[in-house]
Amino acid sequence: MYSLTVSDHIMIAHSFKGAIFGPAQKVHGATFVVEWEIRRASLDAHGLIADIGLMRQALRATLDAIDYRNLDDDPALAGVNTTSEFLAGFLFERLKARVRDGALGAGVAGALAAMKVTLRESPVAWAAFEGPLA
Amino acid sequence: MYSLTVSDHIMIAHSFKGAIFGPAQKVHGATFVVEWEIRRASLDAHGLIADIGLMRQALRATLDAIDYRNLDDDPALAGVNTTSEFLAGFLFERLKARVRDGALGAGVAGALAAMKVTLRESPVAWAAFEGPLA
Amino acid sequence: MYSLTVSDHIMIAHSFKGAIFGPAQKVHGATFVVEWEIRRASLDAHGLIADIGLMRQALRATLDAIDYRNLDDDPALAGVNTTSEFLAGFLFERLKARVRDGALGAGVAGALAAMKVTLRESPVAWAAFEGPLA
Amino acid sequence: MYSLTVSDHIMIAHSFKGAIFGPAQKVHGATFVVEWEIRRASLDAHGLIADIGLMRQALRATLDAIDYRNLDDDPALAGVNTTSEFLAGFLFERLKARVRDGALGAGVAGALAAMKVTLRESPVAWAAFEGPLA
Amino acid sequence: MYSLTVSDHIMIAHSFKGAIFGPAQKVHGATFVVEWEIRRASLDAHGLIADIGLMRQALRATLDAIDYRNLDDDPALAGVNTTSEFLAGFLFERLKARVRDGALGAGVAGALAAMKVTLRESPVAWAAFEGPLA
Amino acid sequence: MYSLTVSDHIMIAHSFKGAIFGPAQKVHGATFVVEWEIRRASLDAHGLIADIGLMRQALRATLDAIDYRNLDDDPALAGVNTTSEFLAGFLFERLKARVRDGALGAGVAGALAAMKVTLRESPVAWAAFEGPLA
Repeated sequence: MYSLTVSDHIMIAHSFKGAIFGPAQKVHGATFVVEWEIRRASLDAHGLIADIGLMRQALRATLDAIDYRNLDDDPALAGVNTTSEFLAGFLFERLKARVRDGALGAGVAGALAAMKVTLRESPVAWAAFEGPLA
Repeated sequence: MYSLTVSDHIMIAHSFKGAIFGPAQKVHGATFVVEWEIRRASLDAHGLIADIGLMRQALRATLDAIDYRNLDDDPALAGVNTTSEFLAGFLFERLKARVRDGALGAGVAGALAAMKVTLRESPVAWAAFEGPLA
Repeated sequence: MYSLTVSDHIMIAHSFKGAIFGPAQKVHGATFVVEWEIRRASLDAHGLIADIGLMRQALRATLDAIDYRNLDDDPALAGVNTTSEFLAGFLFERLKARVRDGALGAGVAGALAAMKVTLRESPVAWAAFEGPLA
Repeated sequence: MYSLTVSDHIMIAHSFKGAIFGPAQKVHGATFVVEWEIRRASLDAHGLIADIGLMRQALRATLDAIDYRNLDDDPALAGVNTTSEFLAGFLFERLKARVRDGALGAGVAGALAAMKVTLRESPVAWAAFEGPLA
Repeated sequence: MYSLTVSDHIMIAHSFKGAIFGPAQKVHGATFVVEWEIRRASLDAHGLIADIGLMRQALRATLDAIDYRNLDDDPALAGVNTTSEFLAGFLFERLKARVRDGALGAGVAGALAAMKVTLRESPVAWAAFEGPLA
Repeated sequence: MYSLTVSDHIMIAHSFKGAIFGPAQKVHGATFVVEWEIRRASLDAHGLIADIGLMRQALRATLDAIDYRNLDDDPALAGVNTTSEFLAGFLFERLKARVRDGALGAGVAGALAAMKVTLRESPVAWAAFEGPLA
């Protein structure tokens, strides 16, 4: 199985609801380094899993929707705790939708086996979501 | 599948028995950066895999038992070569026991699917052990 | 000249005033990896610049005052843009005061020649402030 | 499952054929950080997956065949686009052949379950190939 | 003294003339991670050394002139060995010219004390050039 | 001023004398990533500060004298605490002697202005020594 990963980052504010979160119940923030991996059983005729330029554009466009914001104010995220693991799953779904809409070119969506999205929140903590693409 | 990873480090001495180890048969040492990943199919009501603060405490407590020591002198490690891959498996078992004892909260142990422990011994070498939690 | 550096991190929210900041005028956030370097011309009788444990405690205590907060709400930071470079200078002054108050032990403040504080805000941007300690 | 990874790097030139590659159709280059992971269900009598010294030698020898070259001029790579994902698969096959030829010692090839080769081409992009060893 | 650094990267091919270069006499390549640091004694009214967005644009524009190329074919680099240290000095001069031309805004060029350009060619080697701006 | 840095690593054991060291009074260990920087005002006729291959050999040879050892047993280090900052100074002197003995080629020693040696002991702590070469 082949895989290809691109990385970018966002700088967001948010707060969490629930005593379990301690000081993170207050509005604070994070730089999330976001890694997006796609997997494919065989390469295309160009020797590619996908066009890395299109991948970087699709990741950037997906991140632009939440970058430089207080996620507490985003209607699409109302009523949820935007933990790193939640956001990994959330970005996975948005990236999957983009891929299906042809963001990586016709035919790529059908060729991909799986994807993984990783969010690094600090040098000592990161979360991920991975799943099949079918 | 969701995953969450925390990282910490230890600074230990040890030596290995067997000609295959060459210069590492002498007492030497390592800074091991230890990464502990837990995996869970779905998030809890807070949007969490587990409380990251409890994870960091459980990892720190597990590492404290061997940190700042010559592992050659640890009765729990007598008669084994404490290679990076061995220690990855050893720490996996100790962390699994802590999780089962409730270190990450009631109910978390039953919800986790698998774990992985990685030890980075230098910029050019690292080892890991992963397995199911059931 | 010898130097010794310790590192820690904070996760804060803030916003900036001024059209030059573009999208960063909205409340957003950052994980700042904070590196604190101290410099000394010669080592003490123990072979140390300073006790690294005390250094890590002093850095942690300094960061606790702003960690997990929206800096826009901190009276000590009212009316300023808490850019990375500003915060580097701000933390430099707070750490200098701690050193002078004996946080690294008696005699260390007088022995140090200079300090540097670096804040890494993303994989592609960081700021620092350095200056003499006298 | 245990795993052990070693890392090294190469500095090569190459060019790609196909409009999809844009500016990368011209001769350009890359520093590839190459990570080679091997997986094994249980450790040997020494507490090892394999001799890490032999692993580093086998990786170095495999990389020497393409390091400090323009890959466009390598007959073994004629007619293909030497993308990061292609090279990951290519190096996987060469390393698998070395393992089977005993580069990690007699008996190791039969004990390994799988391998993964990762090529990091920049701080924001990397590719990998993984597969079973049988 | 305050400092602010931004980072980007290029992927180039080149070759060196002279027996001292050994295998690097052949056409090979590199991913250079390029870090550009500017230094300023005091912050402007916004709390800035310079607009980080303008800095990233100026660095990108400077790098575009040599990115994805075989430097052996660049007339501006004819007859020189484009070593990492040479390129650090070369990019320093080009960035200095941009700053003087107002790329970071009016008034910034006069306010900067010094700059440093670092090129990381591999995990184990990097070069830099630093100098005053006056 | 130009600079060139190469990096390597060692894996050593040691212990410290003095209550200030707490748990580090016991035999423990470290992986030290060692960075050696040399500085030169202008490049030689090849466009070099020094031959990077010779630099890596000189660093490796210098590190071999202490690598894979318990430093407590090294007569050259008897009676001193081999802290990171001490070792930075110690390796600086050994590297300076090698440079003077021609390890980087005739003429290089006289051309270098200064050097810096950095030892990274963990992701959150490092020490350095820098000084002129004359």
